[in-house]
Amino acid sequence: MASVPSKPLLTDELDIVIPTIRNLDFLEMWRPYFQPYHLIIVQDGDPSRTIKVPDGFDYELYNRDDINRILGPKASCISFKDSACRCFGYMVSKKKYIFTIDDDCFVAKDPSGKEINALEQHIKNILSPSSPFFFNTLYDPYREGADFVRGYPFSLREGVPTAVSHGLWLNIPDYDAPTQLVKPRERNTRYVDAVLTIPKGTLFPMCGMNLTFDRELIGPAMYFGLMGDGQPIGRYDDMWAGWCTKVICDHMGWGIKTGLPYIWHSKASNPFVNLRKEYNGIFWQEEIIPFFQAANLSKDCTTVQKCYIELSKQVKEKLGKVDPYFVKLADAMVTWIEAWDELNPAGDSAKLPNGKAK
Amino acid sequence: MASVPSKPLLTDELDIVIPTIRNLDFLEMWRPYFQPYHLIIVQDGDPSRTIKVPDGFDYELYNRDDINRILGPKASCISFKDSACRCFGYMVSKKKYIFTIDDDCFVAKDPSGKEINALEQHIKNILSPSSPFFFNTLYDPYREGADFVRGYPFSLREGVPTAVSHGLWLNIPDYDAPTQLVKPRERNTRYVDAVLTIPKGTLFPMCGMNLTFDRELIGPAMYFGLMGDGQPIGRYDDMWAGWCTKVICDHMGWGIKTGLPYIWHSKASNPFVNLRKEYNGIFWQEEIIPFFQAANLSKDCTTVQKCYIELSKQVKEKLGKVDPYFVKLADAMVTWIEAWDELNPAGDSAKLPNGKAK
Repeated sequence: MASVPSKPLLTDELDIVIPTIRNLDFLEMWRPYFQPYHLIIVQDGDPSRTIKVPDGFDYELYNRDDINRILGPKASCISFKDSACRCFGYMVSKKKYIFTIDDDCFVAKDPSGKEINALEQHIKNILSPSSPFFFNTLYDPYREGADFVRGYPFSLREGVPTAVSHGLWLNIPDYDAPTQLVKPRERNTRYVDAVLTIPKGTLFPMCGMNLTFDRELIGPAMYFGLMGDGQPIGRYDDMWAGWCTKVICDHMGWGIKTGLPYIWHSKASNPFVNLRKEYNGIFWQEEIIPFFQAANLSKDCTTVQKCYIELSKQVKEKLGKVDPYFVKLADAMVTWIEAWDELNPAGDSAKLPNGKAK
Repeated sequence: MASVPSKPLLTDELDIVIPTIRNLDFLEMWRPYFQPYHLIIVQDGDPSRTIKVPDGFDYELYNRDDINRILGPKASCISFKDSACRCFGYMVSKKKYIFTIDDDCFVAKDPSGKEINALEQHIKNILSPSSPFFFNTLYDPYREGADFVRGYPFSLREGVPTAVSHGLWLNIPDYDAPTQLVKPRERNTRYVDAVLTIPKGTLFPMCGMNLTFDRELIGPAMYFGLMGDGQPIGRYDDMWAGWCTKVICDHMGWGIKTGLPYIWHSKASNPFVNLRKEYNGIFWQEEIIPFFQAANLSKDCTTVQKCYIELSKQVKEKLGKVDPYFVKLADAMVTWIEAWDELNPAGDSAKLPNGKAK
């Protein structure tokens, strides 16, 4: 397969979105990699607090007052006191691609000791096609030194557009509170040199710590839900976005890749606090997963917005029976799309049937 | 998750099946790993030729005359002049597990330079459960140092029995003839330190070069088809077995893992010869894949044998329209099951609904 350029790219087409409540000292380590890009910082919590950003970075910063001012009553769809607020950054960006990263994530090293340019790998992933319809045993066939193996249908080798690149984490793994409690010392030390397309029809747990997506393709589905302050759940923001996004990508014929790049996740969050945030989610996910596995979008859903509105109706109807929270969430999903369209008046970002971005 | 024993295991429960046309000098390199096991050698081609096996190995050897004598008229289902003949070895084994390897495959080394004990890794794979219903982003959650990540439903963490462990190859990748012709110098040098379950509903290209399976669970589905002498197709034997096996595992609720272990594949086969063998398959696989993707087994299919007979009917009915070859193949699938049951009179090896081996 044609190799993908390896030099830093898309500096004018990609925004880095960072949710935070503290000074962004972590950017110092990322300076050689992030400085060419524009940052969108979404300040969570007390808006009167000043967030310091190291010199030399090009950024815009939004706190809760800004969000309320810009969205008005529709600001209700943006979570408060939860990193789910990051999705506001996706909405105000005007770029084609978004890379989002947590402020406790640092530059990781590969097994040879070389620093990993996470953004470069994400860009390679997202600029090369995905192969969701048949599994390739040598993983991403579009990587250098790899290809489709014997038995892979030729008609599927062109692949489909990649909507999402999901990166992983060395050191602190992304475990739920029960697993954190049971295995407090477990660290992820295994560097798996692979990128692969998650097959069509298969759901996965999307982590928002180290994530890139094509905003023009899938942006309106990247809503991180109602979490944190005033809500009965936290730490399911990225999961929710991932399940919705996967169902919609499957419907639209786009791919999601996972694997490289790794970042270094420095600090485990408090498992006791996490358990309080998660316990409803741990219970509800047993209903949510079968719901998304069975979710079916009609042929009329020809844009991501239409898919998302359709999904919100199904959430209300089916998950609303599980807990009234889902009725509120379904309404917030509609508000999110209204707010998205208001801030992005160019209209639907991508359309069927050809599965290509405008 | 509980770790799986890492010392050599199952010496009384696993046979190594090797199809060959030549002296088995390659076993010298495998001696420390294979000598504790029983070998079943299936000699292809001229039965009057003597195959030399290095001293010290415990083996039984079958040539074409033996196959004809043991199976009588049913020997027609075993291919001649094609490594598909290996499946005769699966049929005559009395062990629970089969490991099969090609005679041009040698011991590979991991990135630290250590020899890879392929069989040990296969055994780890097959003794630990699979997770086909939801994707785990840290790959096999049952490996040491890994687990299920946040967002993975707890109800699915027990996993399901693993029926197949599909290993990979360093050096010569398993490419089809067109890819071999286009990329004659490509070598697989990427060691991906991962094992993963191929999700339910997703087909994959199963290579027979380095493969382990639970014969008691899935053995009757591991038919390598009609290939080689007198047939319009070759080099699709393992693919055919893989597609049938995956559909049946999905139906029975069992898992298939791919990834580690690697072997060192020493020699590319001749791409011109391969093209002659493959060209019908390259054409037909465009019909075969949608056929298997749509294949549906009824609730009455409670054993692998019943599944396989049902699948043979669908092959005859639907793929028979593509080419008369598939009518012949469908008949051979039935003959294979008859022969299997004759040699394995204990009856059906595994039954639904509990998805567990007897």
